[in-house]
Amino acid sequence: MSYNLNVQQLSIRPATERDHDAIWKIFQAVVSTGDTYAIDPDISREDALAYWFAPKSHTYIAEAGRKILGTYALRTNRASGGSHVSNAGFMVAPAEHGRGIGRTMAEHCLNEARRLGFTAMQFNFVISTNEHAIRLWKNLGFAIVGTLPGAFRHPTKGFVDVYVMFRQL
Amino acid sequence: MSYNLNVQQLSIRPATERDHDAIWKIFQAVVSTGDTYAIDPDISREDALAYWFAPKSHTYIAEAGRKILGTYALRTNRASGGSHVSNAGFMVAPAEHGRGIGRTMAEHCLNEARRLGFTAMQFNFVISTNEHAIRLWKNLGFAIVGTLPGAFRHPTKGFVDVYVMFRQL
Repeated sequence: MSYNLNVQQLSIRPATERDHDAIWKIFQAVVSTGDTYAIDPDISREDALAYWFAPKSHTYIAEAGRKILGTYALRTNRASGGSHVSNAGFMVAPAEHGRGIGRTMAEHCLNEARRLGFTAMQFNFVISTNEHAIRLWKNLGFAIVGTLPGAFRHPTKGFVDVYVMFRQL
Repeated sequence: MSYNLNVQQLSIRPATERDHDAIWKIFQAVVSTGDTYAIDPDISREDALAYWFAPKSHTYIAEAGRKILGTYALRTNRASGGSHVSNAGFMVAPAEHGRGIGRTMAEHCLNEARRLGFTAMQFNFVISTNEHAIRLWKNLGFAIVGTLPGAFRHPTKGFVDVYVMFRQL
């Protein structure tokens, strides 16, 4: 099965400045649809990279051969008394969806979070129409711990709920 | 009653650079206890003011005569598809607690949020031991829409839950 083959070929490593072009390409494609992230679809390259590589973020890429297929950023969700809880964002190149790249990155991310000393992970803004992501997060042990009523204006579905998802590590 | 007198004397206006000293004094006093905000109790003046006056924030002060007794910052909680939901943070000088300053600022804030076109307000991180705040927010129409298990390390009570609170405007 190509699915398994691809995932096995996938390697994940910390992102460097040389990955900026590839990350920006994925980032732009992902946010351009405006239905999975509360990020301006017209965000500039500079702002996107500043967000994805924000101070104290751990940013990784997933690649097969030399082709970058996905990226994720892991960070502290809150400072000080909240700093044991991590947060992460994941993006997969749209053409590569359904090949297990998101799951492979998420499993890597959970391990990295543990390694960095985090004891929990929180997703602050999981849009309820993003069924693929919700199924994946539930499958990886996350629970919906909050529902933000109508907190996202979906480009075609109107105002939809948003979930806060959480798991201990 | 001094309570009512004080509240009636309270006026609220947008903060200016000349208020920075007073705001920093309140900010520092509030975060120094480390039990109500997930903010480093040793945060620098520069970082504190950068946070409180972050781009696109609407920052106000409450004063009686020329004495600044409280401050709040109102902003968009999320960009783009989430930008109809506002977020706000409130700080009252510790010596002035219990005089209704928080409530007066919050009512002002809800009106400002409506005026600015927001249709909801969300508090992302209400620490469950902060009973005074929770009672006030409930009284002002906010509901607990999420519970983040053990998401705050309280300086004396250990890991405690954190609430996400929300109301439509």
